[in-house]
Amino acid sequence: MTSTDTTDTTASERHATVRLEGAGMAFLATSGSGHTVRMDTHVEDGGADSAPSPVELVLMALGGCAGMDVISILRKMREDVTGYRIEVHGVRASEHPQVYTAIEVVHIVTGHGVKPGSVERAVALSAEKYCSVSAMLARGASVSHRFEVVEAG
Amino acid sequence: MTSTDTTDTTASERHATVRLEGAGMAFLATSGSGHTVRMDTHVEDGGADSAPSPVELVLMALGGCAGMDVISILRKMREDVTGYRIEVHGVRASEHPQVYTAIEVVHIVTGHGVKPGSVERAVALSAEKYCSVSAMLARGASVSHRFEVVEAG
Repeated sequence: MTSTDTTDTTASERHATVRLEGAGMAFLATSGSGHTVRMDTHVEDGGADSAPSPVELVLMALGGCAGMDVISILRKMREDVTGYRIEVHGVRASEHPQVYTAIEVVHIVTGHGVKPGSVERAVALSAEKYCSVSAMLARGASVSHRFEVVEAG
Repeated sequence: MTSTDTTDTTASERHATVRLEGAGMAFLATSGSGHTVRMDTHVEDGGADSAPSPVELVLMALGGCAGMDVISILRKMREDVTGYRIEVHGVRASEHPQVYTAIEVVHIVTGHGVKPGSVERAVALSAEKYCSVSAMLARGASVSHRFEVVEAG
């Protein structure tokens, strides 16, 4: 298998600037690549629930990271994928700082005649070799991956 | 498990659904709280650089997580904060999966007569006790926090 890396191997640094927006708990983050994401928190924590929370953003990043690896590998394998959804579910510790202790990632791949073995191989390569976010979270949480293949109608 | 229910089942669980958008590398993530974030990657990795990458999102989440802790503690301390910016800088390993090995977080707090000791205490409480994202990344990276206090003009 040739390299299917979806990360930039030349630039090894990343940057973000995060600014408080006002009197609430909303922050506007700008990535080094120049893109913005808002964050907020729940009303019971003083927020307005107007945007994803930072801990939700971590699960979103995990899904995106694994997803980019997997779709890129499946395309190299010439699998005819018409849709791809990732469900990420995290369980947090009850004690501060409430880290994720268990995370499940379910990959649902839709397409025409997509071979389950291809998806299994792509998911394993992402989980074991390529996905930065998964590797970072796996230091403290049990991260498990499952997949389903759905025939396109 | 193919549930598309994106509501939090309990306070200690979080969820995200991430969907491939088209023929490129862009994914649209929806948090359990119902908010969306797009992700993409660099042109050299097959993306269109139209949104932050997953590894950038991790730094944004770290800044937001620490920022929410710190501003909420400073408000409880009755410090008169008029602006607050967090700069997050991450260095990645050169080998796959290119996890962050060192992350620096710089908190720049602007206000009227804000006591440096208050900011120091708030940053330390976030870093050592409250911030989930920082605690998770600190399992594999050296995460350091610095702060600056700027008098409002």
